[in-house]
Amino acid sequence: MSTSAKSRKPAARAAVMAAALTVAAAPHLRGDEGMWTFDNLPVQLLKDRYGFEPKQDWVDHLRLSSVRFNDGGSGAFVSKNGLVLTNHHVALGQLQKMSTPKNDYVKNGFFAKSAKDEIKCPDLEVNVLVSMENVTDAVLKAIDPRAADKVKNEQRKAEISRITKKSTELTGFRSDVVELYQGGEYWLYRYKKYTDMRLVMAPEIQAAFYGGDPDNFTYPRFALDFAFFRVYENGKPARIEHFLTWSKDGAADGELVFVTGHPGRTDRLDTVAQLEYARDLGLPLYLKLANKLREDFYAYAKLGAEQERRSKDRIFGIENALKAVGGEYEGLKDAALFKSLRDREDALRKAAAASSDEAARAAADSWDKIAAATKKAGERRLQSTYRRYDAVKLASIANQIVRMTAELEKPNDKRWEEFRESNLESLKFRLFSPAPIYPDMDEFLLTRAFETALKELGKYDAFVEAALDGKEPAAKAKELISGTTLADVAERKRLIEGGRKAVEASTDPLIVWARGLEPVYRAQRKWNEDEIESVLTAEGNRIAKARFAIYGKSTYPDATFTLRMSYGKVAGYELGTTFVAPFTTYHGLFDRAIGHGEKHPFDLAPRVKAAKKDLTLETKVNFVTTNDIIGGNSGSPIVNAKGEYVGLVFDGNIQSLVGRYAYDDARNRTVAVHSSGIIEAMRSIYGMGKLADEVVGKR
Amino acid sequence: MSTSAKSRKPAARAAVMAAALTVAAAPHLRGDEGMWTFDNLPVQLLKDRYGFEPKQDWVDHLRLSSVRFNDGGSGAFVSKNGLVLTNHHVALGQLQKMSTPKNDYVKNGFFAKSAKDEIKCPDLEVNVLVSMENVTDAVLKAIDPRAADKVKNEQRKAEISRITKKSTELTGFRSDVVELYQGGEYWLYRYKKYTDMRLVMAPEIQAAFYGGDPDNFTYPRFALDFAFFRVYENGKPARIEHFLTWSKDGAADGELVFVTGHPGRTDRLDTVAQLEYARDLGLPLYLKLANKLREDFYAYAKLGAEQERRSKDRIFGIENALKAVGGEYEGLKDAALFKSLRDREDALRKAAAASSDEAARAAADSWDKIAAATKKAGERRLQSTYRRYDAVKLASIANQIVRMTAELEKPNDKRWEEFRESNLESLKFRLFSPAPIYPDMDEFLLTRAFETALKELGKYDAFVEAALDGKEPAAKAKELISGTTLADVAERKRLIEGGRKAVEASTDPLIVWARGLEPVYRAQRKWNEDEIESVLTAEGNRIAKARFAIYGKSTYPDATFTLRMSYGKVAGYELGTTFVAPFTTYHGLFDRAIGHGEKHPFDLAPRVKAAKKDLTLETKVNFVTTNDIIGGNSGSPIVNAKGEYVGLVFDGNIQSLVGRYAYDDARNRTVAVHSSGIIEAMRSIYGMGKLADEVVGKR
Repeated sequence: MSTSAKSRKPAARAAVMAAALTVAAAPHLRGDEGMWTFDNLPVQLLKDRYGFEPKQDWVDHLRLSSVRFNDGGSGAFVSKNGLVLTNHHVALGQLQKMSTPKNDYVKNGFFAKSAKDEIKCPDLEVNVLVSMENVTDAVLKAIDPRAADKVKNEQRKAEISRITKKSTELTGFRSDVVELYQGGEYWLYRYKKYTDMRLVMAPEIQAAFYGGDPDNFTYPRFALDFAFFRVYENGKPARIEHFLTWSKDGAADGELVFVTGHPGRTDRLDTVAQLEYARDLGLPLYLKLANKLREDFYAYAKLGAEQERRSKDRIFGIENALKAVGGEYEGLKDAALFKSLRDREDALRKAAAASSDEAARAAADSWDKIAAATKKAGERRLQSTYRRYDAVKLASIANQIVRMTAELEKPNDKRWEEFRESNLESLKFRLFSPAPIYPDMDEFLLTRAFETALKELGKYDAFVEAALDGKEPAAKAKELISGTTLADVAERKRLIEGGRKAVEASTDPLIVWARGLEPVYRAQRKWNEDEIESVLTAEGNRIAKARFAIYGKSTYPDATFTLRMSYGKVAGYELGTTFVAPFTTYHGLFDRAIGHGEKHPFDLAPRVKAAKKDLTLETKVNFVTTNDIIGGNSGSPIVNAKGEYVGLVFDGNIQSLVGRYAYDDARNRTVAVHSSGIIEAMRSIYGMGKLADEVVGKR
Repeated sequence: MSTSAKSRKPAARAAVMAAALTVAAAPHLRGDEGMWTFDNLPVQLLKDRYGFEPKQDWVDHLRLSSVRFNDGGSGAFVSKNGLVLTNHHVALGQLQKMSTPKNDYVKNGFFAKSAKDEIKCPDLEVNVLVSMENVTDAVLKAIDPRAADKVKNEQRKAEISRITKKSTELTGFRSDVVELYQGGEYWLYRYKKYTDMRLVMAPEIQAAFYGGDPDNFTYPRFALDFAFFRVYENGKPARIEHFLTWSKDGAADGELVFVTGHPGRTDRLDTVAQLEYARDLGLPLYLKLANKLREDFYAYAKLGAEQERRSKDRIFGIENALKAVGGEYEGLKDAALFKSLRDREDALRKAAAASSDEAARAAADSWDKIAAATKKAGERRLQSTYRRYDAVKLASIANQIVRMTAELEKPNDKRWEEFRESNLESLKFRLFSPAPIYPDMDEFLLTRAFETALKELGKYDAFVEAALDGKEPAAKAKELISGTTLADVAERKRLIEGGRKAVEASTDPLIVWARGLEPVYRAQRKWNEDEIESVLTAEGNRIAKARFAIYGKSTYPDATFTLRMSYGKVAGYELGTTFVAPFTTYHGLFDRAIGHGEKHPFDLAPRVKAAKKDLTLETKVNFVTTNDIIGGNSGSPIVNAKGEYVGLVFDGNIQSLVGRYAYDDARNRTVAVHSSGIIEAMRSIYGMGKLADEVVGKR
């Protein structure tokens, strides 16, 4: 599905849409498949399937109106005064951080009636992609073709560091080098950053996440999954040149629509060996871990009302991931899908071996080498799964401080990629977040994490030994959390500013603990980089070259949490013997609530229930399109051919979850909040008419 | 699932509920499984699962309030003035027959505002089961145990003829002997017949059958699938002692409910060989034939608006059957289900072989004999499938007149069962129906039927030879249909009254044609009776005895279109990752219509659309229960523990269709119209408040 019969060399130059707009149709794509980079839009496909030809300024406008939520999510500007529309569930983390037992914005929603009521988010950064430059040649030139894989890997990373550092120094923009097509291309993406984000409006979670975990990733759906932020600059609402104008009627059945956003990750170009690894080891282990974490969080939430409030966003996140990855796993277990992926690989291998292109032939044994590296990775998969304490905020902070201060002593091009100069601002922004930390929650979770590691890895595991130091999990967790002062942002700043020396001098028990873990972690990471990553990169790159040589570039790369465009149409679908409607309405919301006797999670938020008499019940609430999206696209705008805002992506249906590996052209659907449903909610439920006026352009 | 550890001999005496009420729990039943005969209700199960103990007068009252629609369907009395409530789709055949191009009651509905507007149905007969008597001993005593199977079969049929004839003469009631438990028991059921049925009210088909074929057998559902008839006696509304009182609020979530009605057919006690036969030959052939018929009817309907009107009920019937049987077929193809049925059979065979009961041991090779007979039946399955012209009304009438007059010359106990004295009244009632016949439709269908037989059986097939006499299908059909006078009821009466002599003297081309087919048909039927039916009956009876000996009678027999009771509760179910609500509301109807852009079949009937402002949209429309039902149960009342009318069965969900072979205890659901939804429609959509008052008991 990622191939084209037409051969075309990668354009080794700055992104010029005009050229990209001539790319030919890719016959192996299914339906409206594709998460296209903005330098390589499927122009011919759009013309053939929908009779639509995007103009360059239309494309640029969409790109510059789209924003990335760096914690994972997408959004768009919808007014000249910096208003950003995204999902409630993208905003959830901030809502949780801004809530207190007294002002629970998750439970009750948040409604700023005027500018002075808009409140600042503790650690929310959004990015706008302002330029794209193809740096493939520069990256590849820096690699010595005769060097060993692990040396090549170092050379590649060093060159990327140099490019991003130079770009940041030159332009002031956040600069990332993005690897596309498994190393077939490298692009320098520059972002304008916004870090002064204010919360403007968010519905109550019961309205935003109506139907709860059971309804998540399903359709028909009735979720008011939206939230508004406003971008500030210099203490004032930012003046935004590129924002999306609001459609009068919203999406219509059969209408051609586009999604611009930041799909997080797909593995559609992975080899069969990698997919088998995911199916047989990676995903089952992930699901096991996530299930355990869910259990831990529920246990904590049961301790009291306040504990329940504190863990709401975390539980949502875990359940959301469990359901998404569960769907991916079910998808991968489908024998027919697997066969089609295997057939595709066999065809490519055969074509590569028989190719007149030397680069293509060079990939002949790359698949086997990847299979071997994958197998090797499996040997330490248990360790890489359980040697982690990410869920424990204070532990995470300690680890990061220790790692960061050590890395910052190195020259930029020798550092781990996450600590490069171009990332530092964003990193510190998050590390120094004033968001609340709950030590009791951390202690609870760290105890559980210790117990789990002990159970899964045994007490003689190097990491477990270093982490527990022979103590009981509960005692060790208590010692670490009760003794640390890292909940204080000033202490974190002091350590980062003091650098390695300050960290080594610190007697904070969590810092001491993190220092003890560091050698084990570094050994593990080095092993992974030298033995696994370097092989996957080198061989993946050979396969990418073969793929380009044989099929050209008339397809899209795997998702990388960078800006993509997908196209599709508003369309219901067949399910069982009948048809799922393209739209739901407020009528349907009340039907579902009453049909379930208003039992949770199908109960109505009191404000919604009270507004019934004021609502125009025929108004559309949610709808579905054939667009190809995945996690990270949450909050993406859906626009029509005129570039108008018609809907807000918040989900994929169950049938779309296989999308990490393949696009199901019959039943894959993007699930979105209808633009009319948003305005109706603002006016008739939440009394936010003034904000609605701003959105539809009346102010 | 049809077994109990407790051994209990069949009660060889008149039905006494008190005794039946002591039957023990059947541990192999799944969930709320079972279509129970009224002599053997699952009293212990009801007590254990729901804490409910039915009283004898409660049971009798339900039985006497239930009616059978003899063309296939169920219903109930809902007023003392003879009002009968059933499904619109049970009424559909009558509506079609009573409609004309000018007064299309199918399309527009029918609404009698007062008694004088109620119109008589051409050929609708309903029955009420007034008594039940166990005649197993009498039937078995008439069979010579040393005779050959085919002689036994004749003796059995003759005895049944004698019993029914005697009963009819004695009581005047329609009397049927019903074979239960594959011949394990025989019961004499006596029915009070009503043949003066008047149509009172029926919604438009677009409201009654909302969502059309796609939504059929699905849920959630929004169908106003109800219709009212009134039973007349001596030209006046009949005074009815036993009718169901209307529940004030209708069914509630989790409530214990009962369905009384007439499930048509299940094959849950069939042997694995029989099920394999159904899966590999019977069902595929049936589906092929039905698909062809659907094609033929659509071709006819396309000829014009009037042709479309005429074929509406026939197309509904075929599509309904296709979907139901298609679901059965899918169910049978499930390997896990098949394995469980095979395991059950293996266990029974093993237990039978090891039993101390002589009767049980006698069944040792019965399964193999049934397998052999089934295999043999397969050899002529193509013939039994395609040697039929049932869809062609005039051809069917001709065949019946020829067969009936021949059979009536024989003594009662030698006749084919359908021509026994006790059946004659009902038979003639239908044969002499004044319902319209459309010769052009018959000619069209007969041509197609000839073509199909020619294609599937070849021109040298005895039946095809006799039917076509060397002519082309179209020419032969034209000759037969254009020349016949059988559309005239008087001519049919003349022939039946004139008997065999009149038939032999007739020169009506269809009668001549039917006479020619008769020898082939009789030979085929005789072969089937002697070679197949007699073996299945004899060996089935042996297995039944073994089953009784080992497991007792704490289960229910396969469905036989006789009165049964099922129990269950109102309950939604899990589907995918979420939950289907137990109820739908009028809100949901409008949601589905608007969500689909009101495209057919999801458009709203104009009267429904216009009534939106008057409707209380929260009112429940449809709901689901765990009751075990199957085709024939359509129109059955659902009553609560107080015996009040709370819902009207009109469907099973897709997951229930496997029910012909097994009950899916997780997701089997009966789909019903909610009693509140019926009253709300009568009052707020159809202006039938007076009738609603009668139903709820205000008049």
